[in-house]
Amino acid sequence: MNELRKDYLLDRWVVIASHRRRRPTDFIESRREEKKTATCPFCPGNEHLTPPASLIYFMEGDELRRDCDKNGERRKDWIVRCVPNLYPAFSPPSSKINSKRSGCGCISMEALGHHEVLIESPNHDEHPSVARVTQLVYVINALRDRFSFLMTKEYVRYVSIFRNHGAGAGASLSHAHTQIIATPIIPKILREERDASKEFYLENKDCIFCRIVDSEIKSERFIWSNESFVAFAPWASINPFEFWIFPKRHQSSIVDLIDSEIKELAEALRVSLGGLRRLLNDPPYNLGFHMIPEEHYHWHIEVYPNLAIWAGFEKSTGMFINTVPPEEAAASLSEAFESEEESLT
Amino acid sequence: MNELRKDYLLDRWVVIASHRRRRPTDFIESRREEKKTATCPFCPGNEHLTPPASLIYFMEGDELRRDCDKNGERRKDWIVRCVPNLYPAFSPPSSKINSKRSGCGCISMEALGHHEVLIESPNHDEHPSVARVTQLVYVINALRDRFSFLMTKEYVRYVSIFRNHGAGAGASLSHAHTQIIATPIIPKILREERDASKEFYLENKDCIFCRIVDSEIKSERFIWSNESFVAFAPWASINPFEFWIFPKRHQSSIVDLIDSEIKELAEALRVSLGGLRRLLNDPPYNLGFHMIPEEHYHWHIEVYPNLAIWAGFEKSTGMFINTVPPEEAAASLSEAFESEEESLT
Repeated sequence: MNELRKDYLLDRWVVIASHRRRRPTDFIESRREEKKTATCPFCPGNEHLTPPASLIYFMEGDELRRDCDKNGERRKDWIVRCVPNLYPAFSPPSSKINSKRSGCGCISMEALGHHEVLIESPNHDEHPSVARVTQLVYVINALRDRFSFLMTKEYVRYVSIFRNHGAGAGASLSHAHTQIIATPIIPKILREERDASKEFYLENKDCIFCRIVDSEIKSERFIWSNESFVAFAPWASINPFEFWIFPKRHQSSIVDLIDSEIKELAEALRVSLGGLRRLLNDPPYNLGFHMIPEEHYHWHIEVYPNLAIWAGFEKSTGMFINTVPPEEAAASLSEAFESEEESLT
Repeated sequence: MNELRKDYLLDRWVVIASHRRRRPTDFIESRREEKKTATCPFCPGNEHLTPPASLIYFMEGDELRRDCDKNGERRKDWIVRCVPNLYPAFSPPSSKINSKRSGCGCISMEALGHHEVLIESPNHDEHPSVARVTQLVYVINALRDRFSFLMTKEYVRYVSIFRNHGAGAGASLSHAHTQIIATPIIPKILREERDASKEFYLENKDCIFCRIVDSEIKSERFIWSNESFVAFAPWASINPFEFWIFPKRHQSSIVDLIDSEIKELAEALRVSLGGLRRLLNDPPYNLGFHMIPEEHYHWHIEVYPNLAIWAGFEKSTGMFINTVPPEEAAASLSEAFESEEESLT
């Protein structure tokens, strides 16, 4: 079991991932040459290279079916496939009881939770920026299934869904995939968002995110929208060409999505990530869902293109420098999203 | 004047650096090939490529002298040289009054402050990991001079001193240099440290950092010490092989250093950064000073080797995963620091 430690003073937690332990020489070698994986463990036919799937979508005739791998067997006819991470940062409780480390007032707990990978398509390169919208509908539904399931665990307080695209953004495998991490605490950024939105809700009987969306739709930071979703460059973007995607209807997580909204979200992902690829030559990026199943919270997606390095200033102060004003980013992205949307029809 | 913006909800500030503005194509080109600078603007003889120096150390006979460039002239006989950054993130107030942007309740202020570069040596490659200890004494004294000066400005609330080493850690020029940024607010991480240490001080009439140092010196995270400084791997290190350097004596900034401590600090930097180079083949790293001139605060240096990528999970949650337990990092670093120290004598 990995260990979760809190900083001496800061409200900052780190997983000390002894299960993924690396020695000094590992870092030197990995800098010398990037590892090339001859065999992709996520491609069809290589299912035995991953743990048994926790969720599989497959077709039976015209009908979509859900199942999981049983008795150590691996289904081969999947459309999307969710598997436990081979080197999990967080793990479910084991039967043996682990004693907690003591000493020096340092706070520690077990890194209880889950760490899964959603393989988004049997096609190695079917990233959202080029995917069929129908395939993205499966992906969103599968994420919804896993999110709902993991949130029921008594030791889970938060489920983080995120996507690293490109080696520069930390993707260690190039097959299209999303990661799902369930944690035993609500992480710092989410707790701050929750506290601020809850306070606003109690004072104003209104959702602060709804207000932000209403305001940004009319601002020069607006990028694109369809029936149910809107994309804009946030007022205080910390990354060049950062954008956020919000559902127009107030809802706290993807569990609340109705079918038409799932299709609209699939389209929003295809258009926005395709537009980003188009504008910046398929840049590396990180994408994160922010979801808290509480009445006052409004879920959304934040996309961080990885075009600048967070260096000494950012890391030691928690303040950021962004060389692209969000208004200019929005203008460029808007044009690119529109071109992408046209190419789809 | 650049603009400083606050996030809608989070206590997170970003400089929208319009003065360093970049277009989409700039990012594509910079990914295609790294820029090679034929002429180093920090090397002796190229002083005309930088703004006039705000501080210069030079020798007059056996005597060390301090001065600055005057009347647009550039002194050539410097030992260390501090110049304004050509593309500053923060700038001193100009004579013209800039109106503030309004609308949507978004908070903004002028990015008032300073952004300087301390050129650490006339020798291009005299990084702290290989520098003469005597040269590092000049560097520390010069940083002390600029810190003291900038803290007197009425619009300055914090002075961040940091170092980016290697292109992978965001260093755009390879000549040995440190950056100094003065900001009009106390950045988030520092404010949290200040608030927590102040609270502890009021309750216990003691410095929480002194307690941490006392405890870590005896722990398996201890790495190295000399008369006045101690290096250890922090309990909740967020980076592989992260280490912190603390003065043993309680002091709030480098202004409080006495001469013998300056020499000991120079030695601690040489041994620790030399040890890091030795252990991990000169890895990229970010180094940051944490200094708040208040009684209860205890200044220190944090060194973050840049060996892992902060990706979607870290960026969207503010939680971290570290694959090297600090206790193991400390064991390896301790050996490397000792070898480095022996090589010096």
